[in-house]
Amino acid sequence: MPQDSDTDTIRILVATDNHVGFEERDPIRKDDSWRTFDEIMQLARTQDVDMVLLGGDLFHDNKPSRKSMYQVMRSLRKNCLGMKPCELEFLSDAAEVFEGAFPTVNYQDPDINISIPVFSIHGNHDDPSGDGHYCSLDLLQVAGLVNYFGRVPEADNIQVKPILLQKGKTKLALYGLSNVRDERMHRTFRDNKVRFYRPNQQKADFFNLLTLHQNHHAHTATSYLSENVLPDFLDLVIWGHEHECLIDPQQNTETGFHVMQPGSSVATSLVPGEAVTKQVAVLSITGKTFEVEKIPLKTVRPFVTQEITLATDKRFKGLEKKQDNRHDITKRLMSIVEEMIQEANATWLSIHSGGVVDDDDDERPLPLIRLKVEYTAPEGAKFEVENPQRFSNRFAGKVANQNDVVYFYRKKAGTTRKAKDGNQLQEGVTGTHISADAIKVDTLVQEYLAQQSLKILPQAAFGDAVNQFVSKDDKHAVEMFLMDSLSAQVKGLLQLDDEKITEGLDAHIEDFRKVMDKGFISGQQRQAQRKKRFKEKPKGWDSDLDGHWTAQPGAIEEIPLSPEPAPSRRSRAQPTSGVAFSDDDGDVFGQEPVVGKAPAKRTAARTTNKAAPAKKAAAPAKKPAAPKKATAPSRSRRKANPFQDSDEEEEEDVVMGDDDEEPVPPPKPTRETRTRGAAKARQTTLNFSQSQKPTRGKQKAIEISDDEISEEDAFESMPAARSRRR
Amino acid sequence: MPQDSDTDTIRILVATDNHVGFEERDPIRKDDSWRTFDEIMQLARTQDVDMVLLGGDLFHDNKPSRKSMYQVMRSLRKNCLGMKPCELEFLSDAAEVFEGAFPTVNYQDPDINISIPVFSIHGNHDDPSGDGHYCSLDLLQVAGLVNYFGRVPEADNIQVKPILLQKGKTKLALYGLSNVRDERMHRTFRDNKVRFYRPNQQKADFFNLLTLHQNHHAHTATSYLSENVLPDFLDLVIWGHEHECLIDPQQNTETGFHVMQPGSSVATSLVPGEAVTKQVAVLSITGKTFEVEKIPLKTVRPFVTQEITLATDKRFKGLEKKQDNRHDITKRLMSIVEEMIQEANATWLSIHSGGVVDDDDDERPLPLIRLKVEYTAPEGAKFEVENPQRFSNRFAGKVANQNDVVYFYRKKAGTTRKAKDGNQLQEGVTGTHISADAIKVDTLVQEYLAQQSLKILPQAAFGDAVNQFVSKDDKHAVEMFLMDSLSAQVKGLLQLDDEKITEGLDAHIEDFRKVMDKGFISGQQRQAQRKKRFKEKPKGWDSDLDGHWTAQPGAIEEIPLSPEPAPSRRSRAQPTSGVAFSDDDGDVFGQEPVVGKAPAKRTAARTTNKAAPAKKAAAPAKKPAAPKKATAPSRSRRKANPFQDSDEEEEEDVVMGDDDEEPVPPPKPTRETRTRGAAKARQTTLNFSQSQKPTRGKQKAIEISDDEISEEDAFESMPAARSRRR
Repeated sequence: MPQDSDTDTIRILVATDNHVGFEERDPIRKDDSWRTFDEIMQLARTQDVDMVLLGGDLFHDNKPSRKSMYQVMRSLRKNCLGMKPCELEFLSDAAEVFEGAFPTVNYQDPDINISIPVFSIHGNHDDPSGDGHYCSLDLLQVAGLVNYFGRVPEADNIQVKPILLQKGKTKLALYGLSNVRDERMHRTFRDNKVRFYRPNQQKADFFNLLTLHQNHHAHTATSYLSENVLPDFLDLVIWGHEHECLIDPQQNTETGFHVMQPGSSVATSLVPGEAVTKQVAVLSITGKTFEVEKIPLKTVRPFVTQEITLATDKRFKGLEKKQDNRHDITKRLMSIVEEMIQEANATWLSIHSGGVVDDDDDERPLPLIRLKVEYTAPEGAKFEVENPQRFSNRFAGKVANQNDVVYFYRKKAGTTRKAKDGNQLQEGVTGTHISADAIKVDTLVQEYLAQQSLKILPQAAFGDAVNQFVSKDDKHAVEMFLMDSLSAQVKGLLQLDDEKITEGLDAHIEDFRKVMDKGFISGQQRQAQRKKRFKEKPKGWDSDLDGHWTAQPGAIEEIPLSPEPAPSRRSRAQPTSGVAFSDDDGDVFGQEPVVGKAPAKRTAARTTNKAAPAKKAAAPAKKPAAPKKATAPSRSRRKANPFQDSDEEEEEDVVMGDDDEEPVPPPKPTRETRTRGAAKARQTTLNFSQSQKPTRGKQKAIEISDDEISEEDAFESMPAARSRRR
Repeated sequence: MPQDSDTDTIRILVATDNHVGFEERDPIRKDDSWRTFDEIMQLARTQDVDMVLLGGDLFHDNKPSRKSMYQVMRSLRKNCLGMKPCELEFLSDAAEVFEGAFPTVNYQDPDINISIPVFSIHGNHDDPSGDGHYCSLDLLQVAGLVNYFGRVPEADNIQVKPILLQKGKTKLALYGLSNVRDERMHRTFRDNKVRFYRPNQQKADFFNLLTLHQNHHAHTATSYLSENVLPDFLDLVIWGHEHECLIDPQQNTETGFHVMQPGSSVATSLVPGEAVTKQVAVLSITGKTFEVEKIPLKTVRPFVTQEITLATDKRFKGLEKKQDNRHDITKRLMSIVEEMIQEANATWLSIHSGGVVDDDDDERPLPLIRLKVEYTAPEGAKFEVENPQRFSNRFAGKVANQNDVVYFYRKKAGTTRKAKDGNQLQEGVTGTHISADAIKVDTLVQEYLAQQSLKILPQAAFGDAVNQFVSKDDKHAVEMFLMDSLSAQVKGLLQLDDEKITEGLDAHIEDFRKVMDKGFISGQQRQAQRKKRFKEKPKGWDSDLDGHWTAQPGAIEEIPLSPEPAPSRRSRAQPTSGVAFSDDDGDVFGQEPVVGKAPAKRTAARTTNKAAPAKKAAAPAKKPAAPKKATAPSRSRRKANPFQDSDEEEEEDVVMGDDDEEPVPPPKPTRETRTRGAAKARQTTLNFSQSQKPTRGKQKAIEISDDEISEEDAFESMPAARSRRR
């Protein structure tokens, strides 16, 4: 099976949504998830790929059981380690793209022999949470088993920096964008706060591959990520989160890139999308072209689903008029289910015929069967159906899901459309059911709290804490929230002077609560709160916590004596990688310098920016310089985007951030710089920065600018121009 | 600091009870536990030891937070990996002493460069639990970071097999005995069901080192492990679990071996034992001698404790007669605390003077201070003391434990002794407070259930499930228990014939419950239940679960149609290592062959035993052959032991197990066999077995016997003869 690996071809095994740990307590399905993950990792080895790319939700649970973690570590260690050296040249500055105690790519660690490096983003199931904001991938990374990339330290200011790899003549820029709650991701894209960085040399030679983990299809207007907001320079997008296997790359005609949706490797819900044959892909990239080889997974439990409507199905014709038709209906439904079981078993055998697995019944797993039955009857008639569980139990020993083989539903007159919509959402194939539960809890709490008119505790953060408790199994979330909120309150009260105290404390308590509650509101709304200076949001703050940090003591500047917010692991672990490109977040909270990045560092970066920010000067020349509105802190985009109807309205500001605030205009770059850039082409490490001194922040700023001026942005503000491809 | 490592000296860094994660949510102490663990691992590197030996309770929580796990992995990977090869020759069959997916010693994995292997047993805080019976050390082992040994798959039948290591001329037999609840361990030793295995060659040359994790001192008669029950052939015992640092080896005059108690590396309770300077040791073993170098830990937060009695303390003289003496008492107590803080700070500075850490206040951690005050006053007088928390809060910013600086107590007339005893237990230094809580819950549940007279559910297993839920954070324990018990009940009821059913089900339900409840009772009590044939207990069953497995469907043989108990991970992962030495467990449940080990294998082992079980024949000759009582399935020991008053009574059976049941007496060994044994001395792998064929079970039995007949048992039934040392 292993192919002769072309010296210029990077071969990547691609998979997403392995959901290890799903149904691990089910007596029948318990081993399904890790068995298939193990198959995938074995495929990586037998196919002798150069690397594995995982698109999130490796684990089903935010806190996987020890057994799940053990199984994953086992499969990784068994298959990824070995004597064969990985042939990928690593061109990035590892500290730019990795975090944690070992910010390196694992196959360059001299003490661990990695043959097949695994790169993974996190999904919505295995995202960071809790004290220190660790996720399961952090543990795999610190163990040297996985390269966890595409972290999102700030959900409302996202910087996507690629891992640059090379094999022979093929250059790969691997982008990762870990999951952010869809509504939030939508907002961040809308606010033009997602930036894709591109290599500063030989940019055009790179194959640009992005992995992300978001809703692919519109559940509501804001609860998905549109392909069209992604930059056009991308060549291929691996779309995680959606469980339906649509592994053949589809070209997006508007953006030009292709999209591949590998789907989950284990069915987590009994919907048609999950019944599509589960496959992984070996993606072969040569130069700017790619090929996809699909590999059906053999360990996946067969799953057959069917949807019937009794009223229109000829097998049930006339039964609605029969008295006591339950027995007949049950009998006919049973024979349909039996057929489905036959089909499932036949499918299994056809996949495994001549394969490694024995064809006898012992090896064949019980199938998953789901028959969805609409039993709406015409006026005056009736279809009588059996209790669904009792019906399902008839297939005990023949199916893996003996409690929910059948799903009966009826359309109700008048509410037909609504019921269908609700049903559609419920039956979605995105593996979001847990998150959906959480949102419900969240909403419930919010609604309840709204009626209580809280006096001391901030409402939004309260809801969030409960959400963390429920969906992330973080049993300390509420305790932390209480401690933090109350200590902020007490500290606030201690600052009151005697006069105010005699007025009574109630009003002040309420005021502090409001401050904290407002602090929870992020993004553009913060503009209105300029008087409440928020301190810098800690770098490593949980991406999904949506400003929870403002409930921390010290987050609000106007309350003196508050200690600094405890530096998070991320910010301590390494210098903020964003500092070098500091221009782009100066006005997150308005004009107050204190609210942006650390001022000292930004100044340094700006000074060095004078040296060579070639693109910055060149870019505005490319498009009409629109007049800047005095009141407009928001930034515009260059092209039509799904958030706005009108292009014109958006042309009011610049693309590259705060160039216009640059104190000294950068020198115009000459052709020489471009040539120099080309001469560097074959250097081993191709960085955004080329460090001469350990103070990384300063150095980076020099090199972030693009030598090849006329093509694209050095840091490409999203959405990017789509000129190149056409 | 690194010493020139003698080519014949094995240098071992020894530490126990690191309790990583302790107080990780405390705003001040949160980093203490992993900071010190990191110091220890750094010491291993800077001291350039050959290996690290940990005595259990590496983690404080059974399910450590991701942060704790991350910190431990980080420290291990940073310090244990490297290019320097580990110089220890590994002489064991790794599969004999390790389990899991990678039953190898980590430094022999060609894909991970381990310079300093870490060997660890589990303690009571980080023992296996939950589905699959994994513990945190399993994760570290599968990641290749730790060698987890000394597992106890069956708490009532313990086989302790050593890891055999060699460096130059020094040979080390490293024994590990992971934690088992003390009462249970006591019973297993009492029943002579703990067996220590010894190498079959050059036994006398080995330095025998045992690590265990039990109570060292008698809280009650059965809740500790007596040193004297351990075999005399040991040279040194590293005693984990006790937190007081008593690191200077003490010789046990009765057994001859030395005992070293390193103590915890973080204070988990504010008792005097924890205030002893925290140290680790570098143990240097050369031949049969050893040296200990003590290394005080520098990162440990200073802790000063003092106990005073107001009535006898001259600083409080006369105050009891003063009206409203609270103010005076508080004032004087405060000055005592201030002195203690001074002392703590001075100690810190003295340790760090000239050291790496800066001496300024920023670096100096706030100390732990505990003042224990007895304020019993004479008749008619009174000592008024402040609310302890309010008093403690006076030292906020000066101490790390600002809520419990002071502990007030009073002796009550008449109950003096009892109160004191209770206090002593509460203030024990063994880190058992969680386990103590759990026992309380356990007891509470048992007492409650006893009053309820359960009809369906077995009581003991119920209590155990609740205990698992509470102390091991196993949220599925009760669910599992319910499922298992109820399905066993239902299966039982389905077997009833019509006649019995017409009699009414209640009695039968009650009967099944009793069966299950009895199944929970282990050890010698099972003798009385010979009619209820229990199937073999699964190998990997949780050591502390005490027979819970009998509540599983299929555990009880007399109920037909029950499926086999699901094989546990352990038993599937590798062939039962105990089979080769099968003689010793034939009568666990009496004479029924079905209840012991798999009969087929045992027979095989016995047959091959004929070949060369030299020692077995020779041993009885060494001591007076006592008449065997017909009724006595229990085995005797050769010497006085703490479980029995009389030596005589114990001489009734043999030492080596069921030799007397051996169908054919083994041939008498000749001097030749001994010589042959000596000739093999320098072989690389020195096993219990010397495999010629993959069927390990059969091979082992051949080699288990000792070539050097006259000295000791091949498998030394505990307690061993103490003749050698004297």
